[in-house]
Amino acid sequence: MRWAEGFIAADWGTTNRRAYLIGGDGRCTDEFEDSKGILAVEPGGFPAAVAEIRQRLGDKPLLLAGMIGSNRGWAEARYVPCPASIDDLTAALVWPDNDVAIIPGVCLAEGGRADVMRGEEVQLLGAAAAGLIPEDCLVCHPGTHNKWIERIHGFRTVMTGELFNLLREHSILSDLLSLPAEPCAAFDHGVRRGLESADLQAELFSIRARVLLGQSRREDAASYTSGLLIGGDVRIGFAQAGRASSAVVVMARPELTSLYARAIRSAGGDPVELDGELCFLAGISEIAGRIQ
Amino acid sequence: MRWAEGFIAADWGTTNRRAYLIGGDGRCTDEFEDSKGILAVEPGGFPAAVAEIRQRLGDKPLLLAGMIGSNRGWAEARYVPCPASIDDLTAALVWPDNDVAIIPGVCLAEGGRADVMRGEEVQLLGAAAAGLIPEDCLVCHPGTHNKWIERIHGFRTVMTGELFNLLREHSILSDLLSLPAEPCAAFDHGVRRGLESADLQAELFSIRARVLLGQSRREDAASYTSGLLIGGDVRIGFAQAGRASSAVVVMARPELTSLYARAIRSAGGDPVELDGELCFLAGISEIAGRIQ
Repeated sequence: MRWAEGFIAADWGTTNRRAYLIGGDGRCTDEFEDSKGILAVEPGGFPAAVAEIRQRLGDKPLLLAGMIGSNRGWAEARYVPCPASIDDLTAALVWPDNDVAIIPGVCLAEGGRADVMRGEEVQLLGAAAAGLIPEDCLVCHPGTHNKWIERIHGFRTVMTGELFNLLREHSILSDLLSLPAEPCAAFDHGVRRGLESADLQAELFSIRARVLLGQSRREDAASYTSGLLIGGDVRIGFAQAGRASSAVVVMARPELTSLYARAIRSAGGDPVELDGELCFLAGISEIAGRIQ
Repeated sequence: MRWAEGFIAADWGTTNRRAYLIGGDGRCTDEFEDSKGILAVEPGGFPAAVAEIRQRLGDKPLLLAGMIGSNRGWAEARYVPCPASIDDLTAALVWPDNDVAIIPGVCLAEGGRADVMRGEEVQLLGAAAAGLIPEDCLVCHPGTHNKWIERIHGFRTVMTGELFNLLREHSILSDLLSLPAEPCAAFDHGVRRGLESADLQAELFSIRARVLLGQSRREDAASYTSGLLIGGDVRIGFAQAGRASSAVVVMARPELTSLYARAIRSAGGDPVELDGELCFLAGISEIAGRIQ
């Protein structure tokens, strides 16, 4: 098959996958999303799961990113150390089948620190190649695990989204966190607390105590908690980058970028929001264009 | 009924209850524990649940502590503001039935801070009445929610135990946290990190990354994580109390006090371990002795 005549790009995660048909002109002409994440595929079932994608989008070569390349996925695509370029990722592609390539993740291991990403690197390098990230700009990539990235030279993962979900689904705060988090005054209050306080383990219990003692409204708890976690996240990201008031690109689904952008602004930063899906398509097309 | 001829003390929590028969001489002569916590009692079912206790331990007056007095329990026993003495708690007893009293919890609301405890106050005041807590000694009360208490003048709750359980049961770290946390080198390493770092949201993800990159052993992850959380807890407690190197009484089940005592020692403190159950019996007997 010839990659120049078009290919299928897929962001294949733990619990769902999203596939796009990219034409020879670089445009996305068809796409779908379903819940066949890697955990929903039986052992040995990946060739069939790929055939299913081709049946829906056409008989094209496939380029896959995300947890599909993890040790729980189809074939492990080992992490490339950062700084990593599009050429580095292309050179390290793993080919589990004819005309099917998996993009590796990126790791950082220095000075006792260890961190990994898998999937976000495609969006980051795509946005950079498209000229959407100013030189030396800090990048914030919200999600289950937010990544603060300095142009792939260094990065740090913060478990904000997962902690919020754990607290909402399973904790003593569950009954207070049923409403959606909104960009409101309670969110801003949480952000300020998160920016100041290093005591997350204690701040979380205070949320319940304040409601019990009538100091805050039950209906504000979800927004406050989201603000507290995102504020702490921004504090960690800014400290990691050693700066507080420069431009920050925020790249993800729009409903997430807006809350992070609001918190970054509260912290004195200057956020620019990008749609993560567009960045993903730009990045994966760059990689596909390098495949001979 | 006459309280001086003996009574039944119960620590009645959310998911289980423990009841003790205390004789006129103050000795505990019988006891049992079961899983009939307040959430397992149907609406209107508390008189029957109490009759069941009397059937097992005898027809005596009952003095109840713990979540039985919360807004989800039998009858709400409103929080008494701290500083609270044994006399304050006795004066605020709530009587949902003849010869059945519920001990109120204690709250703190000052300077924008809010915190509550329910159950721990009995142990604390009991240990103090028994002369087991030196004057001005900081008290650490581990559990689902650890309490750092300055002789009931002030206190702060840290959600350490609950966070550890959430991470172990429901998070991306679950598969790494199946082993029990042990007082080992990995625990000490986690404690040092928790004492230093204010970035819990990011430190948690690093646990996974280090294992993935071969920097730490999978079998050390549970002890390291426990150390990280308890180290952060001790950092918060010492900062709250404005001191780092004096005597700290640690009061709980022995398997918990030993991990906290080890972390407190790492932080330069001088821990003294007390058995929480003995403190509970001392405290509730003090209160029963004041009932006319």
